[in-house]
Amino acid sequence: METTTAEGRTILPARTGHAARVAAGQRISVIDLDGGQVGDLFAFAADDPGEHLSAGHTRAATSRLFPAAGQDFVTDRRRPILTLLSDTSPGRHDMLIPACDPARYAGLGADPGHPSCAGNLHAGLAALGLTAPVTPQPVNVFMRIPVEGDELRWLPAVSRPGDAITFRALMDCVVVLSACPQDLVGINGGQPTRLAIDLLPAD
Amino acid sequence: METTTAEGRTILPARTGHAARVAAGQRISVIDLDGGQVGDLFAFAADDPGEHLSAGHTRAATSRLFPAAGQDFVTDRRRPILTLLSDTSPGRHDMLIPACDPARYAGLGADPGHPSCAGNLHAGLAALGLTAPVTPQPVNVFMRIPVEGDELRWLPAVSRPGDAITFRALMDCVVVLSACPQDLVGINGGQPTRLAIDLLPAD
Repeated sequence: METTTAEGRTILPARTGHAARVAAGQRISVIDLDGGQVGDLFAFAADDPGEHLSAGHTRAATSRLFPAAGQDFVTDRRRPILTLLSDTSPGRHDMLIPACDPARYAGLGADPGHPSCAGNLHAGLAALGLTAPVTPQPVNVFMRIPVEGDELRWLPAVSRPGDAITFRALMDCVVVLSACPQDLVGINGGQPTRLAIDLLPAD
Repeated sequence: METTTAEGRTILPARTGHAARVAAGQRISVIDLDGGQVGDLFAFAADDPGEHLSAGHTRAATSRLFPAAGQDFVTDRRRPILTLLSDTSPGRHDMLIPACDPARYAGLGADPGHPSCAGNLHAGLAALGLTAPVTPQPVNVFMRIPVEGDELRWLPAVSRPGDAITFRALMDCVVVLSACPQDLVGINGGQPTRLAIDLLPAD
């Protein structure tokens, strides 16, 4: 199970999620402990989980397909919720693909009960006493979905052990991270592994 | 106001929307009567407006950024809802940008009350006695958002008068079309105009 240290680090075992309340100004780092692991990152307004970070509205705000250092992520009400401070990974991060869910795994022929990022999201929110009306399209950190012409490719993540992407919260929010359990499509190299999330004070 | 002919054509005045129930097998054509006009097309499962055509889940299903003839569009539960039969327009159709809404127009400095595709969506559903819990990201027919490297560009639609894109419903559904009222960004060439929607029997 997940463990949280005094320094604010929570280690997510492979295939699990974690939700945390974050105050405006705090920093959030997602660390790929073992390398090659995708994380689905969701964020909701603290006072209303009906408002969420939206990949689509962020694309409209930035006119970019992929996140870049210095950019803001906005909600479905077009309010800034996170900003991207820094990134040590060599790859891009995806904002095109929705969270894996039971319907996705059913389509891939997996057994019912296969863990999913959508399941991890809602379980994480429930652990905080919250519910969200939808499964928003997440920011998929370390996920490598290059676009070639009109085509998307699904490639294994190239993040290295210890690579980290760091955000700052721009409003009080709830952040949920899922260590993606996808083992039937190659995005995690066929072997889902751990992630860590650090919640750091405002600097 | 909108008018519907005996042949199943409804003409949407500039900046307005229209919602209609469509049976599985029926065909739906969106016609750009005057040229250069974007339409935001939404579709919901007839028996549950909580299930909707999802641009993100469709990208995951097709591994493509833009619609192509012969492809299916799927819902947020990954069920096929529409298929793309034919397209006479020279351009692409967008699946990256969310519907314009009051927050978008506020950010652009418009007066409160500027019409929006989100507003047209919910008004159209209300006219059928329906409500949807969210504003799904639509299929933006005739909308020209090319991707160059990592960057999106917002260009005027190049559809010609009479150009049509035709879908078939794969389940009983509710389809909503909005003649996009955007006049502050150049996607409609600065001058929103009419659209038509034809509901045709199964062939």
